[in-house]
Amino acid sequence: MPLRLDIRDPDFVARFEELVHSKRETEADVGDVAKAILDDVAARGDAALIDYTRRFDRFDPAETGLAITDAEIDAAVARVAPETRKALELAAERIGAFHARQMPEGFEVVDGEGVRLGLRWTAIDAVGLYVPGGTAAYPSSVLMNAIPARVAGVQRRVMVVPTPDGVLNDLVLTAARVAGLTELWRVGGAQAVGALAYGTESIRPVDKIVGPGNAYVAAAKRQVFGRVGIDSIAGPSEILVVADADNDPAWIAIDLLSQAEHDAAAQAILVTDDAAFADRVVAAVDDHLVTLPRTSIAAESWHRQGAVILVRSLDEAPALVDRLAPEHLELAVAEPDAMAARIRHAGAIFLGRFAPEAVGDYVAGPNHVLPTARTARFSSGLGVLDFLKRTTTVACDAASLAAIGPAAITLAEAEGLDAHARSIAVRLNRR
Amino acid sequence: MPLRLDIRDPDFVARFEELVHSKRETEADVGDVAKAILDDVAARGDAALIDYTRRFDRFDPAETGLAITDAEIDAAVARVAPETRKALELAAERIGAFHARQMPEGFEVVDGEGVRLGLRWTAIDAVGLYVPGGTAAYPSSVLMNAIPARVAGVQRRVMVVPTPDGVLNDLVLTAARVAGLTELWRVGGAQAVGALAYGTESIRPVDKIVGPGNAYVAAAKRQVFGRVGIDSIAGPSEILVVADADNDPAWIAIDLLSQAEHDAAAQAILVTDDAAFADRVVAAVDDHLVTLPRTSIAAESWHRQGAVILVRSLDEAPALVDRLAPEHLELAVAEPDAMAARIRHAGAIFLGRFAPEAVGDYVAGPNHVLPTARTARFSSGLGVLDFLKRTTTVACDAASLAAIGPAAITLAEAEGLDAHARSIAVRLNRR
Repeated sequence: MPLRLDIRDPDFVARFEELVHSKRETEADVGDVAKAILDDVAARGDAALIDYTRRFDRFDPAETGLAITDAEIDAAVARVAPETRKALELAAERIGAFHARQMPEGFEVVDGEGVRLGLRWTAIDAVGLYVPGGTAAYPSSVLMNAIPARVAGVQRRVMVVPTPDGVLNDLVLTAARVAGLTELWRVGGAQAVGALAYGTESIRPVDKIVGPGNAYVAAAKRQVFGRVGIDSIAGPSEILVVADADNDPAWIAIDLLSQAEHDAAAQAILVTDDAAFADRVVAAVDDHLVTLPRTSIAAESWHRQGAVILVRSLDEAPALVDRLAPEHLELAVAEPDAMAARIRHAGAIFLGRFAPEAVGDYVAGPNHVLPTARTARFSSGLGVLDFLKRTTTVACDAASLAAIGPAAITLAEAEGLDAHARSIAVRLNRR
Repeated sequence: MPLRLDIRDPDFVARFEELVHSKRETEADVGDVAKAILDDVAARGDAALIDYTRRFDRFDPAETGLAITDAEIDAAVARVAPETRKALELAAERIGAFHARQMPEGFEVVDGEGVRLGLRWTAIDAVGLYVPGGTAAYPSSVLMNAIPARVAGVQRRVMVVPTPDGVLNDLVLTAARVAGLTELWRVGGAQAVGALAYGTESIRPVDKIVGPGNAYVAAAKRQVFGRVGIDSIAGPSEILVVADADNDPAWIAIDLLSQAEHDAAAQAILVTDDAAFADRVVAAVDDHLVTLPRTSIAAESWHRQGAVILVRSLDEAPALVDRLAPEHLELAVAEPDAMAARIRHAGAIFLGRFAPEAVGDYVAGPNHVLPTARTARFSSGLGVLDFLKRTTTVACDAASLAAIGPAAITLAEAEGLDAHARSIAVRLNRR
């Protein structure tokens, strides 16, 4: 059974705070292994990539080549059902349109003292996208990571993907084609991260690495951070559904399970003001579980990580939501916009009874790479800004430097940085 | 002598790449010590803070209280020279005005399928600013870190600062007052980072920690990352000056030294197209060094890390600049804007002969917390966006879900995520 809390319980605050701070992830400590692989790739380049791929993926890229060829992608696309390809194209178009609206504008102004100040945005030159192999290879994630980079204007958009036993994933390659990736390499694990960070004879280094991966990939990304940029390391998925009694319990139940089915460590939480409705949702979850293919994962998540929180009034929900700062938030209530306006911390909000979270995973347009584990308090989902950076500009002439320079000299001297002070003073004929 | 390279040399490319990849920083590995302190603060709270402060800062905060009081700040402000206070106020005003221009706007649109999509920005609730003690306590850095948080709308803006022997730094406290910090605590080191991340009886936890610190502080910030947000860990400062022969060599020389004086590991590089001018700059550096108070630091930086790069034409400069991706870039040339337009990677650009980098350190308005060690390839200086986060919104009704839902069902089924598919299908009366 999922945890059940009632805001009227005398120990509610303590038990709710326990839920807020519960740790669901136990990331294996594989830093040493990842470091050894990274060092080896930095030292031996392609030869190391080939060795690790032989060992971990059980095929010889010296025979196939490290690069996935256009012909291989063509063949993969041809094998994918037309309906699926069209769905990927619709998703790509909608993701592209939403992210295009995020493109920021710089500015340049001349202020009252005659100082010309500016801020401009430029794209990162080259980005690497890690795509996991096996069951965690989601074509939708290829779109969500690659399209914002393309919209931002990143020129080199490089995908690395392990191909266990040399088998290519048709859906992933089709998504890569649809998302406009410019290079694809059949290499995965920490060795792929090393190739992207350090470069090899075949693979030129990139400036930033994004995308999900297993514990080795996460550890490798942490270690190359600084040399290249990385995205945040995502934890298990979460959904929080705020629902009143006017919902169909079966709809709410399947929404909870749509995150629970990702991972036994995923978390689904229901907040409602109606105990009988909560009971109906719990019963409906059990009904769905009988017929879901991924029932064992979803059931373990729901029973171990799930929670049902009963409040006196849905007015109490926003404060609880902000404490939990969920990755996904569904507001299945009569006035979802009014409630959303009272909530500060959530990765993505789904408004109303006809916006199940899954529509955002694929085709709505916003990104599905979102902050987990309460990090929505201080971070954001992936977006165009993650593939751009800012440069500020300052232009002075003699007059404007004379206007603001003396204050800078005063502060530099107060800080004991005389060369700083002098670099301004010489231009003001002060020395 | 600084390194001297000429683009006409046959080994130029190799030696330039060596410069690009030279490591200047040797961060001590103090992760274990930092972890022990963090764990202790998490476990014992204020008692641990008091113990470490007694040991490392040689005074007893159980007597003074951990909080720096308003009366103490008043007294500090009163002791600062009025000219210095006015300079801090001018700087704060200009920094505030520049950062206010960075405030982003969200959007909400209804697309052709009737799906309502939005993106909104909210401020982080609480931010901690670490301010170093001793000689690295720069009031200008207090302004540069605290003002963007205030502009962003962060409600709790908390400063921690070590006060060795219990001595308060009047300039830092005055800057804190001018920057509008809301809480000040006399605690530093990894223990202060622990207090900000985990909270203690006295200090409530924050959501993000920014600001420079020593190796212990940096290691502690790395370790609490995830629980709270952190800014990037800055390396030694850098300046790259592109200058033609029409400059006063003494001006360019002092600009190079204005970064060199920060740290023996700082780096100052001159790119010019005139060998005789380069010689005059090198001679002028030596002249300045004779009279600079921080001559030993600046001389060590210049002689060990400095470089003079001779190009055939300044047309060749932008490509070299982009490879180095400098923190600070001065373009002391006849047409600085035209050259800036050709450069993609730099933290901040100073345009023309009257814009020494030091004016940007204090009063120009843009932030002086900037990406070092080539990270300007993928990251930005501190700004208002670092204190905000995005939430996306999706609203569908039955009709718009019917328009885009089937594609999502197709993709969810292709990925084997049946609960995802079903959460849409139930709403479309498909099951």
